[in-house]
Amino acid sequence: MLRTHTCGELSKKDIGKEVTLCGWVHRRRDHGELIFIDIRDAYGLTQLIFDPKKDRSMHKKVHELKSEYVIQVKGIVQERPRGTINPKLSTGEIELLAGGLDILNPSLTPPFEVDKKLEISEETKLKYRYIDLRGSGMQRNMRLRHKINSSIRGFLERENFVEIETPFLTRSTPEGARDYLVPSRLNTGKFYALPQSPQLFKQILMVSGFDRYFQIARCFRDEDLRKDRQPEFTQLDVEMSFVDEEDIFGLSENLLKKIFKDVAGIEIPVPFPRLKYSEAMEKFGTDKPDTRGTKHAGENNYSFLWITDFPLFKYNKEEKRWESEHHPFTACKEEDVNLLDGKDLGRIRARSYDLVVNGAEIASGSIRIHKREVQEKIFKTIGLDKKDAARRFGFLLEAFKYGAPPHGGIAFGLDRFVTIFTKSNSIRDVIAFPKTQKAVCPMTNAPSDIDDKQLKELHIKKAK
Amino acid sequence: MLRTHTCGELSKKDIGKEVTLCGWVHRRRDHGELIFIDIRDAYGLTQLIFDPKKDRSMHKKVHELKSEYVIQVKGIVQERPRGTINPKLSTGEIELLAGGLDILNPSLTPPFEVDKKLEISEETKLKYRYIDLRGSGMQRNMRLRHKINSSIRGFLERENFVEIETPFLTRSTPEGARDYLVPSRLNTGKFYALPQSPQLFKQILMVSGFDRYFQIARCFRDEDLRKDRQPEFTQLDVEMSFVDEEDIFGLSENLLKKIFKDVAGIEIPVPFPRLKYSEAMEKFGTDKPDTRGTKHAGENNYSFLWITDFPLFKYNKEEKRWESEHHPFTACKEEDVNLLDGKDLGRIRARSYDLVVNGAEIASGSIRIHKREVQEKIFKTIGLDKKDAARRFGFLLEAFKYGAPPHGGIAFGLDRFVTIFTKSNSIRDVIAFPKTQKAVCPMTNAPSDIDDKQLKELHIKKAK
Repeated sequence: MLRTHTCGELSKKDIGKEVTLCGWVHRRRDHGELIFIDIRDAYGLTQLIFDPKKDRSMHKKVHELKSEYVIQVKGIVQERPRGTINPKLSTGEIELLAGGLDILNPSLTPPFEVDKKLEISEETKLKYRYIDLRGSGMQRNMRLRHKINSSIRGFLERENFVEIETPFLTRSTPEGARDYLVPSRLNTGKFYALPQSPQLFKQILMVSGFDRYFQIARCFRDEDLRKDRQPEFTQLDVEMSFVDEEDIFGLSENLLKKIFKDVAGIEIPVPFPRLKYSEAMEKFGTDKPDTRGTKHAGENNYSFLWITDFPLFKYNKEEKRWESEHHPFTACKEEDVNLLDGKDLGRIRARSYDLVVNGAEIASGSIRIHKREVQEKIFKTIGLDKKDAARRFGFLLEAFKYGAPPHGGIAFGLDRFVTIFTKSNSIRDVIAFPKTQKAVCPMTNAPSDIDDKQLKELHIKKAK
Repeated sequence: MLRTHTCGELSKKDIGKEVTLCGWVHRRRDHGELIFIDIRDAYGLTQLIFDPKKDRSMHKKVHELKSEYVIQVKGIVQERPRGTINPKLSTGEIELLAGGLDILNPSLTPPFEVDKKLEISEETKLKYRYIDLRGSGMQRNMRLRHKINSSIRGFLERENFVEIETPFLTRSTPEGARDYLVPSRLNTGKFYALPQSPQLFKQILMVSGFDRYFQIARCFRDEDLRKDRQPEFTQLDVEMSFVDEEDIFGLSENLLKKIFKDVAGIEIPVPFPRLKYSEAMEKFGTDKPDTRGTKHAGENNYSFLWITDFPLFKYNKEEKRWESEHHPFTACKEEDVNLLDGKDLGRIRARSYDLVVNGAEIASGSIRIHKREVQEKIFKTIGLDKKDAARRFGFLLEAFKYGAPPHGGIAFGLDRFVTIFTKSNSIRDVIAFPKTQKAVCPMTNAPSDIDDKQLKELHIKKAK
């Protein structure tokens, strides 16, 4: 290592030690001949003192230093004089009397100051994302996000779940949104689709006997973007065999309890209250009510609520046909099965559920259909004829012929969850390299032009 | 839950209990009127006995049962008669005297028997992947893979690393292979590329001050496939700031020591031996020598070896130009910097390293360039003019202007590592849903035809 300690590590017990720190010039104050510099790294800030009486030649170098220069400093840890102690810093009782300085890399004046960027446009912040990410807010968010993932994995592992990676180059699993497509070079005229979610794969994994699967998985939807949407987003995907709704509720509640405990030290009360879809619509006029302050609220800042008993189908007036409210793999209530043959499809209740916190949906799931005949009937009801169903979902119907267990699951939108958890304004504040509403990355300029040679190899042309 | 216990859980201490199991009919033996069935789930096998004297109507249902039917069975745990104990099974001392049976889902006769599929073609195994995955070998491999990932994450987390997700829809980061491209709907005529690795993002994360980053990341290369290649593969990606080679070696060795300890209970000796590239070529004629049984070997079945001091450039005789041996972001040895201005580029040694085990390269990395001038010079040397360099890597060069720290890292090919670890024949045996050598998934039939409407929205046409 080019350092002996990090910039967040030194304290009174280190007084007298000779140490080496590396980091960025965060702030500089000249007090007469003495120069004070706060050096910053991922772990904190340490105050450096450069005294010209010590070393004239070093002092020339110190005068070159500007914000964001990367430096290596040798020195002796000393106690700060009384009255200069900074109780807000973990290193606030000490300072480093510099004895040696190396400039590891200079820096141009950055387009905005680290940690002071209120009036900066989103576009500029994203173009210079590496400067923005140096700020304490983004550093904290990314580390919290990691901790949340770590807490999730620890919990599910102890509950015997196995994380399995499903493919990104796959067949379209249409779930209402547009697919991102990838032309195949080796298979002329054919295309992969990036998954909108691992939905079909997780069901196939249940048919494969994995019993309890999860994955923190990237998902892709080519939709017109709004504030809370990104072309790619991250989902905690969970699926279990031989379960009913209560098992999913219990697991999800204990998972969230664990995350809040591990990462924020907050005790959230479980079980969460539940409301039927019809009750929620009647009482709140929405299926994502913010129940803080109502009798459905928990005891703290986070008010969780299960919404259950969604309708299985909704009527699409424009296209004059029934479509799935959730997705077409959702089972219906046992009592309502016989309604599937009737006219009154709107009355059929699904075995699906959403988890809402403070008015935002953070998870959604269902008990799935596991019988081929039922799945075929649902496809028919939403207007997929046998040929279409076979073409799009044939492999699932095929798999259901060979011993599919009853199964169900849930998926959490992690970006939104972390946004709520960190009290951030936008999911862009919890994603390292997000895109703009035009689905552009101002830092890399993706998407970009490509060579005709590449297109030719992929057997495609640009349309005029 | 539809069960009270799993099929791998019951033992002598449960004798006399009434329990419910769910699982697949694994094997059936009729002994006169008594019918024995092994029921299987993810956790094990339990022997069921159906006695016609108990319940005639249930017995009719039992006669319907065939391999891979999914059933739910209620019964009383009883001791197996002497002589019928199976010491190979965790449940081998007990059996379940069935008192109730529900067929949860029937099964057609599967195309091959679970756990007996030696003469089955790869194509059939992949088409019916959900049957193949039920076998004990694939179940074990996927669970070991999960354990390895879990051990990696635990270790790196304790070492203060933060896992950060980098984008999949990005700009091409050319590293010698072809990119998979994704046409943009919102940006006519432009394309995203799927990342060949997170290389540039991990360097940008160092510029962003994250200090210690890792990611278990999917990578994409559109190459002609061989036995050990897949269109998408998984990499453990690691990057650190303010480090030199020794830090990467130490970290990697301790990481591997931990994995082998955690997952296999094996102590591997560290540090690993090292060989310079030139020595390896001289002694073994390869830079991936299998050193088992040589003086460079460790003490067990896994013989690790660092290869160091690779040449920075190799001469491409066809194109008559120098190119990067590793990738163009690799730093060169301090002593060789002055050679950059000379003619003898082949003599310049890189600060790069490979980790080889039993003749297979499982990791590769380098100390990176962090100065813009040096990076520009390297681009020029490999024939990228200023405009080209700016077009392809402009954002990295730009980032290097604003205080890039010295940094370096390593990436482990996880598929290959897990293949070696599990002593599997092919990386397809450690990937849940792999593709064939034609980059096709026989289960989903990806890649597939798509509608003209979709192409039109993406502003592309198929080439004739």
